[in-house]
Amino acid sequence: MNNEGKEHEGDDDSSPPVILSSPPQRVVLDTSLFVNPDVRTNLGSTPTEALETFLFLAAQIHILEFYMPPSIFEELLHFVEKDRIPGDLLVILHQKPPKRHELKVPAFLLYELIEDLRERVNKGLRIAEKAVRSAEKKKPEEIIQDLRRKYREALREGIIDSKEDVDLLLLAMELDALLISADQGLILWAEKLGIQWLFPDKFKDYLMGAIKRTKLLSEKEPDQSPL
Amino acid sequence: MNNEGKEHEGDDDSSPPVILSSPPQRVVLDTSLFVNPDVRTNLGSTPTEALETFLFLAAQIHILEFYMPPSIFEELLHFVEKDRIPGDLLVILHQKPPKRHELKVPAFLLYELIEDLRERVNKGLRIAEKAVRSAEKKKPEEIIQDLRRKYREALREGIIDSKEDVDLLLLAMELDALLISADQGLILWAEKLGIQWLFPDKFKDYLMGAIKRTKLLSEKEPDQSPL
Repeated sequence: MNNEGKEHEGDDDSSPPVILSSPPQRVVLDTSLFVNPDVRTNLGSTPTEALETFLFLAAQIHILEFYMPPSIFEELLHFVEKDRIPGDLLVILHQKPPKRHELKVPAFLLYELIEDLRERVNKGLRIAEKAVRSAEKKKPEEIIQDLRRKYREALREGIIDSKEDVDLLLLAMELDALLISADQGLILWAEKLGIQWLFPDKFKDYLMGAIKRTKLLSEKEPDQSPL
Repeated sequence: MNNEGKEHEGDDDSSPPVILSSPPQRVVLDTSLFVNPDVRTNLGSTPTEALETFLFLAAQIHILEFYMPPSIFEELLHFVEKDRIPGDLLVILHQKPPKRHELKVPAFLLYELIEDLRERVNKGLRIAEKAVRSAEKKKPEEIIQDLRRKYREALREGIIDSKEDVDLLLLAMELDALLISADQGLILWAEKLGIQWLFPDKFKDYLMGAIKRTKLLSEKEPDQSPL
């Protein structure tokens, strides 16, 4: 595909060379980037700080467009000090729900989801049985703590298990966007659906790279424009 | 839509009138029709008898085409005396898997499935906790029996929970067929997907009706053929 530079070979030589800037890459963000302490560290020590840093960086980027489903946005607002977040947020971070009734997903995913769940449900029962059997040796409260942790691990981890998760996946699908999340279940499903995704700990690096590229492009433009 | 009888108004009066018989209605069958004792009663007292009755009736029907996914067919074979089933079965009951990698399902179904599961998973945990708490009063084996029953009820009933279930739904979708099953979870999903379905206890009546209609149509045909 040797098309590099083809855009400069216009038939009409009288017009100035035009840089065909590609449309901005769309990026769908999950709350986990700001809330999960393992992931947000390089953005800030609290969710509010992390979101502020993001807004500061994102304001300098013209080559990306940031999106979040309203359901996820609401989640985020639970974690931040709302008065400290500037109104920029609403301009920089677009809130858009996916077109739930228009989008379709490949049917083979149903098989994968249901087989996965079947195994998890069986595992959940085994965990519950084990808990009942251990009741002779330990106190009920202690057993129940342990049961809850193990049960949730078996039935929830690494799986999409909420409508917010589905919102993120479908929005990324609809917009042909890059999905950035720290949720392993979401990343697994992004893989299945052919959705671009990024290691969440690379989020800040990605933003820095986008700032650099934005500057580079905006420096080039005035040079080549016919004053 | 006043099109009745339009097929007889051909421009070319020299040719004999032709009955435009519609293509056969496709019907997808679930094992439950032959295996579930509440449903199969009017077909036979054992799965083998029910299947034999079905084959006897189906052989007289030309206006329906019967299908079963191979996964469901295999299930069925576990329940019947294989040597008593005539080879007709293979001719009358077509085994066809759905096109898993071509079919698509509406994305909003993912939401419904996942929300439903989320509630069930929570309910499962509450059942398990209750079982642990009751361990002081009852024997572990007694509790576990009870736990299993309640847990399965909460997590399995009224839901599609196996790849065989998905096979049935997708095959019915692909063939634009009528789905006949005694499984409430499947019927619920057939409703969501716009798949035709029939009350399973009407299965025999449906077959009898189809025999009557087949006879009616085959009696008409010779009458109208230009001998």
